[in-house]
Formats: sequence, C-alpha cells, structure tokens
Amino acid sequence: MEVFLDCLPCILRQVLEAARLATDRTEVHEEIMQEATKLLTRYRKFPNSPALTGAMHQIVKEFTGVFDPYREVKKKNIRDALQVYPFLQQFLAAQKDQIYWALKIAATGNIIDAAVNNIQDLRHEVEKELNKGFAVCDRNQFERELERAENLLIIGDNAGETVFDRLLMEHLSNLQITYAVRGEPIINDAVREDVRASKFDEGINVVSTGSKTPGLILADCTEEFRTRFYQADLVISKGQGNFEALMDEKERSIYFLLKAKCPMLAAELGVGVNDYVFKGNGR
Amino acid sequence: MEVFLDCLPCILRQVLEAARLATDRTEVHEEIMQEATKLLTRYRKFPNSPALTGAMHQIVKEFTGVFDPYREVKKKNIRDALQVYPFLQQFLAAQKDQIYWALKIAATGNIIDAAVNNIQDLRHEVEKELNKGFAVCDRNQFERELERAENLLIIGDNAGETVFDRLLMEHLSNLQITYAVRGEPIINDAVREDVRASKFDEGINVVSTGSKTPGLILADCTEEFRTRFYQADLVISKGQGNFEALMDEKERSIYFLLKAKCPMLAAELGVGVNDYVFKGNGR
Repeated sequence: MEVFLDCLPCILRQVLEAARLATDRTEVHEEIMQEATKLLTRYRKFPNSPALTGAMHQIVKEFTGVFDPYREVKKKNIRDALQVYPFLQQFLAAQKDQIYWALKIAATGNIIDAAVNNIQDLRHEVEKELNKGFAVCDRNQFERELERAENLLIIGDNAGETVFDRLLMEHLSNLQITYAVRGEPIINDAVREDVRASKFDEGINVVSTGSKTPGLILADCTEEFRTRFYQADLVISKGQGNFEALMDEKERSIYFLLKAKCPMLAAELGVGVNDYVFKGNGR
Repeated sequence: MEVFLDCLPCILRQVLEAARLATDRTEVHEEIMQEATKLLTRYRKFPNSPALTGAMHQIVKEFTGVFDPYREVKKKNIRDALQVYPFLQQFLAAQKDQIYWALKIAATGNIIDAAVNNIQDLRHEVEKELNKGFAVCDRNQFERELERAENLLIIGDNAGETVFDRLLMEHLSNLQITYAVRGEPIINDAVREDVRASKFDEGINVVSTGSKTPGLILADCTEEFRTRFYQADLVISKGQGNFEALMDEKERSIYFLLKAKCPMLAAELGVGVNDYVFKGNGR
C-alpha cells in the first residue's frame, strides 16, 4: 500500500503537535516545519504512511534532542487505563462469549488517547465503545487456528491500549505469548518502558521489533524479530499503523485487530469510520 | 500577520478537497499534491495564510482547467440560505435591538457551509447559532461612526453567507452600500455570480476587489478598489480570511464581523473557538 494523499495533511499536523510537546521554543517549531514540509514533497519515495510518519517524527527528535515527545502523554494514558482495568475485568467476567469480548476489549483500548477530562468520562466512553460489536469479525478461522496454536505474537500499538491488551492475554494464557513493541519511541506507540508501566504478567515475553516507525515495516525490523514473526503460530496485529504496514504481507496469516479511525482505512477495510474490525488476511 | 504553522496542514487538506471537487482523476490529484507540497515548503515567502491559500488553489485551477471547483457547492449553499431567509426576517423583526441582531445574523451566515442533511437541520442549526450573542461587540464606536456615515463598504466572504448579509444591508438601507466580492473564484468565497443568485437589492453596488485570494490582500486589489476602500465612510470586513489579511491595516477604521472558527484566530482575537466577534481595529 502506498501513502494516501489524505495522510499528508494529517501527518504534518501531527508533526507540529509533536514539536510543541517536545519544546516551547517557537523558532524550533518553525525549523521543524520547514524541514518537515521539505520531506513531505518526497512522500512518493515512501512505501506507506507509517514509513513517512516515522521519518517526519525523526525530524522532531533531531531538532529538539527530545527522544520521546509523547512520554508524559503516554504515562497519563497508561495511568488512566490502569484505573479502568478493574472495570474491564468485571465487564469480561460478565460475558458468555469470552473470546469475542476479550478481543473487543483489546480493540477498544485504541480509544485511550481520545481527550477526556476525567476518569469518569473515560470509563463512560470505554463502556459506550465496549458495547459496540465488531463490524467485521473473522473469528471462525481464528478459533480454528487458535486450537492448534501453542504460541501467539501480538504486535502492540499505543501506550495505554497495552493495559486493555492484558485482558486478551489473560484469556489466552494457555499460550506462550510474545508482545512486540517499537524499537524506539514514535508518537504515542508503546515501547518497553510503557509495557512495564502497564503491569504485564511476568509470563509475557516482551520484545522489540527494532523498528521506529508507527507501523510494523518488516524490512526495518531486526532479523531476530522477523524470524519470530514468521515462526509464530498465530499473529495478532493491533491498530491502524500496523495494518497499513502489514496489509500487503501475504506470506503468513495475520489477524488485524483495530478501530478504523480514518476514512481512508475504513474504506480500505470496507467498514464505516469508528467501526471495530477483527480481520484475517486470508492466509 | 504571518502564516500560522497550524494553517499548513489545514491548507493542504483543503487543496486536496478542491482537487477532488474539480476532477475524479486520481492521477491529477497526485500531480496537484506533488506541486502543492512543493509550494508549501515556501510558506515563509507569503505574508499571510490567505495569500498562501490563494497560490495553492491556483495549482488546482491550472492542473484541472476547472476555474471554480466549488461552483456547485456554492450554488447549494445559496439555495439553502434563500430557504432560511424568511425565517431570518421573522427573527430580526421580533428583536428590539435591531442593529445588534442584524450584525449577528450577518456573522451567523458564516456557518452556511457546515454540512447539514436537510433544510430543517439547517434552520435548526441557524436558530441555535443565532441565539448566541457576540463574545466581543464594539457596537458603541460603530454606532457613533454610523451616525455620520453616508456610505458603507462590506467586504464579502462565502457564498450563501451573502444571503444573510442582505438582512444587515436592508437594516442599513439609508446608506449607499457597496458589496465587494473576489475578483476570481477561490474556494467557496462569493464572486459576482453568487451575489446575483443571492438576490441582492438592486440598490446595492456590487464590485470586484480584483483579488483572487480568500482574504482581502490590498496589494492584490485593483487601484480602483483600493481607492474605494480608503474613501468609504464605514468598512465592515466579513469572515476569517479577510480578518487575517486586514488585521495589520491601520490606515483606516475597519469593523471585523466573523465567527472565530479556528483556534489560532480565536486566540489572536482573545475569544473561544466558535465565538462570534464584531471588533473594530481601534482606528
């Protein structure tokens, strides 16, 4: 998949946001935007939006010396998610169809970065979103693969969402689970430190992909991670960025678990904006 | 005022919208975005956002041969506004403070381009917005100037909003009124054809500024228009684009009548986003 034209303004907007999180110095924001607009002209050289986004945010890191502009944002999102965690447990315990709702909880975690004023608002928002089912749910094939699987690789997405993923991992605790995070901070995506703050069970094997783009571009990953990716019995890829980067990967079966937040990806997936999706790649 | 960094992604998004309105050919959208991102790198060469926006939309015209991509959008907005017009008349007739609400109606016209499904929705939206007062209203000085004025220049903004402006002009019909429109189509701004469709009273003198930017950049206007601008007894400038282009103009008194739609301009005006403003430039 190539870079959608709609992504260009969106990526530029996000770079400005990151620049402002990294520093208050407006002259540095100017420098970053000059460099960012220059890079944007070369968008066709990038295989997909996560690759372009990664390069754009690299400018912010270089010009500010701030390696992780979203650090405080991520901390807050994890803190908020941890407060909602007991409610998520109760919610799941009350469901008959455990696997469906464990997957749905993990997908719903994607809303954790939406602006909310307080924890009551967040809990209310999560409750509302949780009760929506999947617009697409390839559960039958997934469950057949699950029966035969001994291990599972989850490709993580945002910090905070990580806490929601715990519910899915607890439900699948009979498997050996590996949870992959970015090799370097990029936007609000989870890195090793964020997973630690999310209080994962000790049995979960947390690994770095080695990549610093907000989507799993296999060519950017370590050889070690790529081997792991191809050898895993089951792969669940979370969020839009990973979907964009992996949607053309046909060598192995992948299940994409996400909320379709942008119109372009929703159209690609054949769903409406804000719909929830659990979709296999047909392999 | 210079180009706000926040305007860059917003302008780029709007260029893509215009490109898609002008043609369905995706390869032309690509060409336009390549050219547009190139021009965007030179944003610091432009005195303000309307100037940059004008140049960006020129690309759409050149690459598509479509001189007025928003033609159908503008027609629809005018048609919708004409349907609301009788309600606006009733609303104004019921007010004690005629000048305040005539100004407020003209400012509220700025919402006509918001997406609405049907005429009932629009009427409901207009009613809701009309009932909000101004967050800033420099009416005292305006009324003092009004007493001495024989003529008034209104610098128009969007098509459709033009119909709302009729109520203000009807209220001020003791003055000789000149209504200025863009010299060429640019986004959904009103040109001569749109004013004709808006059914202005024949006594209104409609003139072109000669400019094709979505904001009144005096340097781009005809000599004839500039003379008219400086010689008018009273000037009312409508909308954000005209405010951006004229906010540093201190040679004559100007009253800015607008809804603050974007966070940057709202901050500049010291009001909240979506607030209504009627503000003199202190001359």
